[in-house]
Parts: sequence; structure tokens; C-alpha cells
Amino acid sequence: MKLNPAIILVQPQLGENIGKTARAMLNFGLTDMRLVAPRDGWPNPSAGPAAAGADMVLDNAKTFDTVADAVADCHRVFAATVRDRDMPKPVATPGEAAKMVSESFASGLQSAFLFGREASGLSNDDVSHADTVLTVPVNPSFGSLNLAQAVILVAYELFNISDETKPHMTAHPEGPANKTETEDLHQHLASELDNRGYFRSEDRRATQERTLRNLILNAGFSSQEVHTLRGVIKSLSRPKR
Amino acid sequence: MKLNPAIILVQPQLGENIGKTARAMLNFGLTDMRLVAPRDGWPNPSAGPAAAGADMVLDNAKTFDTVADAVADCHRVFAATVRDRDMPKPVATPGEAAKMVSESFASGLQSAFLFGREASGLSNDDVSHADTVLTVPVNPSFGSLNLAQAVILVAYELFNISDETKPHMTAHPEGPANKTETEDLHQHLASELDNRGYFRSEDRRATQERTLRNLILNAGFSSQEVHTLRGVIKSLSRPKR
Repeated sequence: MKLNPAIILVQPQLGENIGKTARAMLNFGLTDMRLVAPRDGWPNPSAGPAAAGADMVLDNAKTFDTVADAVADCHRVFAATVRDRDMPKPVATPGEAAKMVSESFASGLQSAFLFGREASGLSNDDVSHADTVLTVPVNPSFGSLNLAQAVILVAYELFNISDETKPHMTAHPEGPANKTETEDLHQHLASELDNRGYFRSEDRRATQERTLRNLILNAGFSSQEVHTLRGVIKSLSRPKR
Repeated sequence: MKLNPAIILVQPQLGENIGKTARAMLNFGLTDMRLVAPRDGWPNPSAGPAAAGADMVLDNAKTFDTVADAVADCHRVFAATVRDRDMPKPVATPGEAAKMVSESFASGLQSAFLFGREASGLSNDDVSHADTVLTVPVNPSFGSLNLAQAVILVAYELFNISDETKPHMTAHPEGPANKTETEDLHQHLASELDNRGYFRSEDRRATQERTLRNLILNAGFSSQEVHTLRGVIKSLSRPKR
């Protein structure tokens, strides 16, 4: 079962931003886009090209005259804001909101997220239709997220919470050498191998070098180990006594 | 202390995308941008307008000829890919990568993230400079993230892990009413209802009262809201004019 809360854009201005939002939604499997009184009407010819293939989201988008109409079938509504509001609402981060949506979904309840106008955000009237204020923790001195980017952070958290195919971390040794040390080791090795005709052809060289570089990096050598290996290569490169 | 790993764009094509990436970085406090062989040279006049105020990131951006040069001072390098690579590397999600960066940072180690060309992503040669493959879990049938959006997801996770000023779930900024206030509200309501024969029998009264008390408590009213509701009950209880 997949979380698919409504993403509601309140009086969005530019068709391009609606398109980019559709793309961000579909990247994480969201398809229920709703538009409240889009400034330039709907459909908007600038939306399609910006959606970069997410046309099905745009084609299925529904329009509404008011926020109240847009959330009418929803049980839990989040309002995305950056500014503090003088309103007695619980506040959630995108991660917390995703958990709440997931719990609501398990009880058969539908959720929605309200996003405001590009320039001015949601009005206090808009926010009053929400149960919870959604606030993305951002750099306090540079907090202006664009519309599609605010949406993608929410969509990403929703996908994370419902995704069970996450790649898993495999263990990695500690204390790695820095990339100058590992690259110097690689170059040293490659150079000595080259002196001995190891690289069978220029065609094969790129692949063989890549294999070696991966081998060195994946080993997770410490600085000391890299030092040791440099000594080994140096030693091996000397003529036999 | 703030996490500030390098964000390295490998052969980025459009200045606009470099600018949008700078904005996404600064939204979450990242400032170390590095450019490997940007296609149209550097500086690029299209970057500034797209950065929407994040000029300091662009002004401080450093350029490099090769990936090896760009990561030379780094200890832990992540390569962002969407496609599966036939390379023996550990794989991390943005959230897992943020934890690893944080742990490395605590040990005084510098991290970096490699992001590829807009159209084709990172080459296998590029990836071979990384310790770990970074994969964003996405909709498998619509996985093309644009550059700034891939970067913002990483930056967001890094900010989350280092941010201690996260908004907390508070039912009411001003604090919920205390139990005297809510109980007085309940008693006021019950008394006026009683005056009107709402409680059908003494048997049913306990259940009906409990229902009302729960309703009031679960609403989490603030003192001000309780005050407002007392006025509402008072007003409703007056005879019609």
C-alpha cells in the first residue's frame, strides 16, 4: 500500500512551477495534485515542458475555487509555512508529518499538504484549514525554499517511510586515508605496472586502472597502510638481487 | 559545529543549474561548492540569477580539472547515482550518508559528494573516486531527479542531523489550558445542557458526560480558546431576542 496524500497548491502563479512540482511529486510516487484558483487558469501550457515527463500528474490535477473545497474529503491537513504563525497549531517537520500521514493512512484516513503562492506563501486563512503546521528546518539566514523543492522534501520523506526496498549500508572500515594518499598509491602502482607492460593495450588500460582504483578504495586503507603499500610497490619494483 | 561537506559538480552543463544548486546548498547551510571542468567555463553569468541570493556560495566556488583534484583533501567521498553500477561499493541513502558524514566530521575527517552531468550523470571513472555510492530511493518508474533536487535532499538530511533547533511538536505555543479551566468549561456546558434536559436519564448521564469531557480534552484547547468557548456557551444559553 502506498501513501498518496493530496498535494494542494494554493493560487500557484507560474505554470512552470506547477510542472516542476508535478515532477517532484512523481519522483516519489505522488499523483494527487490539486490546484486552488491557479492565477493563469488551468490547464497552463508552461506546465507540461517543466514536468519533464510527469504529464500524468498534470493530466489528473483537479482545480478548486477554495481551500475548503480542496480539502473537503481529507481528514488530516498540513500547511507548509516558513514564517512563524501566531496560530495555536501543532508543528511538524517533514519527517514527523510523514509518520503522521502513515498512521492516518493505516486508519483509512486521507491526508493533504497545502503549499502557498510562490511569492507570499499561505495566508493565515489558508492555514486555518490545517490541523498541523509543516515547517522545514532550514538555514535561518537563507530560508526561501522554492515551491518544487519544498514539495520534494515532503514527497521524499513520505516515500522513505513507505519504501521497503531501501538500499542497505554495508560495513566500511574506519580511519580511511585521504584521497591524495590513495590516488598517489594508485598512480605509483599504475606507473610501475606500466613499466612492466601490465596494461595490455590502451583500450584495456582504462578498465584495468579503474579496477585497481576501486580495489584500493574499497579496501579502506588507513594512512599507515597506504604508506606500507607504497614501500611494498617500491620494493617489488627494484631489480632482484 | 556545523557539517559542511564539499558538494562537487562534475562537468555541470547549465549555469542555471549551478545557481539553483547553490541556492539549495545555502538553504541548508552548505557553502563548499566545487566545480570539475564546468562545460561553459567559470564564472558563468547564468548562475547568479538562478541562485536567488546564494551568491556567496557561487563566489566561493572552486574549479578543478579532474575529480581526483577536487576530492584530494577529502577522506570520505560519496558518488550520487541513480543507475545501478557494476562496482563493488557500499551503498547509502541520503539519511545514512548524513550519519556517516557526521561521524567522520566528529573524527576530524572531511567528506564530499559527487554529482554528475545533468544528462548522463557520473561516469564509472568518476564513481571510482568514491568510497560509497549514494542512492536516493525514488519511484522506480520515474527516477530522474534534477541536479538541484538531488543536492537539496542530501543537504536537507545533513542539516537535519546537525540541527538542534528543530521545531518540536507543541500542541499550543501558548500552552494548553490547565485541567481546572477545561473542567470548568465542561461543568459550565453540562450545567446548561442539564437545564435543557439534554441528559436523558441518570443512567445515561455518566456516559454522555464522559463523552463530552473527552471531546474537550482531546481538542487540546488553549486558555484563550477555553475563554472563547465559555463566552459561546453563555451566549447560546441566553433566551432568543
